Amino acid sequence: MLNEQGYHIAVVGATGAVGKKMLETLEKKNFPIKSLKLLSSSRSAGNKIEFKGESFIVEEAKPESFEGVQIALFSAGGSVSKKLAHEAVARGAVVVDNTSAFRMDKDVPLVVPEVNEADIANHNGIIANPNCSTIQMVAALKPIQDKYGISRVIVSTYQSVSGAGDAATDELKQQTQAFLNGDELKPELLPVAGEEKHYPIAFNALPQIDVFQENGFTFEEMKMINETKKIMHAPELSVAATCVRLPFFNAHAESVYVEIDDENVQVSDLQNAIANAQGVILEDDPTNQVYPTPLSATDKSEVFVGRVRRDLDNSKGFHLWVVSDNLLKGAAWNSVQIAESLVKNNWL
Amino acid sequence: MLNEQGYHIAVVGATGAVGKKMLETLEKKNFPIKSLKLLSSSRSAGNKIEFKGESFIVEEAKPESFEGVQIALFSAGGSVSKKLAHEAVARGAVVVDNTSAFRMDKDVPLVVPEVNEADIANHNGIIANPNCSTIQMVAALKPIQDKYGISRVIVSTYQSVSGAGDAATDELKQQTQAFLNGDELKPELLPVAGEEKHYPIAFNALPQIDVFQENGFTFEEMKMINETKKIMHAPELSVAATCVRLPFFNAHAESVYVEIDDENVQVSDLQNAIANAQGVILEDDPTNQVYPTPLSATDKSEVFVGRVRRDLDNSKGFHLWVVSDNLLKGAAWNSVQIAESLVKNNWL
Repeated sequence: MLNEQGYHIAVVGATGAVGKKMLETLEKKNFPIKSLKLLSSSRSAGNKIEFKGESFIVEEAKPESFEGVQIALFSAGGSVSKKLAHEAVARGAVVVDNTSAFRMDKDVPLVVPEVNEADIANHNGIIANPNCSTIQMVAALKPIQDKYGISRVIVSTYQSVSGAGDAATDELKQQTQAFLNGDELKPELLPVAGEEKHYPIAFNALPQIDVFQENGFTFEEMKMINETKKIMHAPELSVAATCVRLPFFNAHAESVYVEIDDENVQVSDLQNAIANAQGVILEDDPTNQVYPTPLSATDKSEVFVGRVRRDLDNSKGFHLWVVSDNLLKGAAWNSVQIAESLVKNNWL
Repeated sequence: MLNEQGYHIAVVGATGAVGKKMLETLEKKNFPIKSLKLLSSSRSAGNKIEFKGESFIVEEAKPESFEGVQIALFSAGGSVSKKLAHEAVARGAVVVDNTSAFRMDKDVPLVVPEVNEADIANHNGIIANPNCSTIQMVAALKPIQDKYGISRVIVSTYQSVSGAGDAATDELKQQTQAFLNGDELKPELLPVAGEEKHYPIAFNALPQIDVFQENGFTFEEMKMINETKKIMHAPELSVAATCVRLPFFNAHAESVYVEIDDENVQVSDLQNAIANAQGVILEDDPTNQVYPTPLSATDKSEVFVGRVRRDLDNSKGFHLWVVSDNLLKGAAWNSVQIAESLVKNNWL
C-alpha cells in the first residue's frame, strides 16, 4: 500500500455509503497513497476496514486528526464538514467535501472535472463536490453547452435510495420483503431522516428529497438549480427541477429537457457531441432498444445518455435520458477525480 | 343483480387487469345492469367470475356475442377491438373502447368526462377511452386551461407495471423476490411484450413504454402528445412526454411542467382552480409534507395533484405532481363514467 511517491490521505465518513465507495475507488484507480487515515463519528470509531489487503482501524474525527494530512475527502454530512473542514485546512490539508456545506460559497470551487476542472486552481483549501443528481446532468450537458450553447433546462429525476445512505438501502430492502409477505410497512426514515412524516418507499414514488424551501421546491431541487449554474458558469441559465425518490437501490436517472441556442442542430449532432465527451457514454439506439437504466449503470464510473430526441414543437428543444451511479460519478469517483487533478496539476 | 330499468352490458376482456377493475367499478358504482355478458379470448372462456353475488361464466367473444347488447366495454387489446368493435356496433351496441385502436379516428370521440363529456354526443357507435397516463394529466390540466389558458406541457411519467397487465405485475413480484434472494433475474416481458429485448424491472427504471416510433419517441409518449391535443380541443398546444416504467405495482405519477397564457396568476390561483375541479383532489401542503404518491392514490377514483409551484425563471411556468390509479381513473372508472354519461344523457 505504502507508496513513497504518494500522498497523506484522510477519508472522513469512511464507514458510510459514500465513504466505502471512496475507498473502493481509491484502490481501483490506484491513487498514490503514502498514508491513509480513516475517520468517522465516535459511533463508528474502532471499526476495521480492509484497504489493499491491509487492515485499518477507524478513528474518531477530531481537529488533530488532520495533522500531516495532504488531502482530506469528507463525506460525513454537512455538520461534520462545517465543524472540521476548516480545521483540516488550518493544518495544511486540502479538503474535497462531498456535502452541501460549502458548495455555494463564493470562494469554494464546485467542480465536476469534465466540466470545470480549471476552477480547482482557485481553491482556498476547500473544493466542493456537487450533489449527485447535479453531477451527472452537467456532465451530459457540458458537450452540448460547449458546441451549441444552452439556455434552458427542465429536469425530472428518478433517484435511488442509496443517495440517502445505507440506512435507506436497508429500509427499502426490509419494506420490500414486508410488502411481498403481506406485512404492514413501517416507514421510519424516508423521504427525509429527521422530518416529521415518513412514507413507504417500497413499490412507491416519493416527490420529496431533502426538506422543502419557502418557494415550494425541495432543497435537493434547489441544489440542482443553483449548483448547475455555478458549475457551468452560467448564472443566466434557466434551470427547473423535480426530484423524486424511487424504489431502486442504486444509480439515478434523469429525464432532461434542454433548449439550445442554435435551431439548425440535428439529433445526430447532439449524439456526436455527447459520444465524444469525456466521461460520458452514448447508449442510444431505439431500433435495438438500447438505452441506459439504473441497473445497467451501476458500478460504472461514467455518465450514460440515451433517448436523445428533438422536441416536436420547439426546434431548439431536445430530450435526453441521463443515468449514472450516484455513489460513483455522483460522489466517490468525482471526489477522487478532484484529488487526482489536485495532484496532477500541482494544485495542492 | 337484475335491474329491469337497467341496461344490457358486455365486458370484453373480462379476465384481464382492467376488465376485472371494470366489473369491480360497475358493482361499486351500482351501474344499472339488466344483463351482463362477460367475454374474453377462447383461452379464458369457461372461467367463472363473481359479480354482485352471482356467478358468471366467461364466454369467447364472437360477433354474435353482441346481439342484444346495449353497451360494450372493450379492454382486450387493440387487435380484439379492431376485429369486434364494429361487429358490436352493427348489432346495436355502443362501444366504450379502452384500447388505442380508434382513439385518433376523426369520427370517434376520445373522452375524459371531466374534460370533454359533450363530445360523447357525437359518437357513431364507438367512444374511445384515452391512454391511462393521458387521462390523469388532462383531468389535472383542464381547470387550468379553462381559467388561464395553457400553451405548453412537458411531462415525465413514473408509471406502474399494472398498466402492462397482470403478467407484468407477476413479473415484478417474481423478479423482486429473486433479487432479494440474490438469484438471477430473468426478464421475459417488460418493457414491451413481443419486443426482442427484455430488461429487469425489479429495482430498475425502463425508459421505454410501448414500441419506438421513427421520431425517437415511444408510442406511449406519442399517445400522450396526440391524445392530449384531441381531448383538450387544442391542436396548437405544445406537448412533450417522456414515459418511464418503474418498479411499483399500481398508480402512475407525473412530473408536469405547464406554461399558461397569463403571467399574473399566483400558485394559490392554480391550487384553487385544481381544488374546485370535478374528479380532482388537491393534496398540496409542503410544510406538512402533504403530496400524493402511487400508494396513497391506489384504489381511489380521483386524480390527485400536489407540488404546485411556480417556475423560478418563467413567470408563466408552473410545475405539478399528478398521481392517479391507472386501472381506475386511467381505465375502468373512466370507461364506466362514459357509460354513465351515455345513459344519463340519452346518448345511447
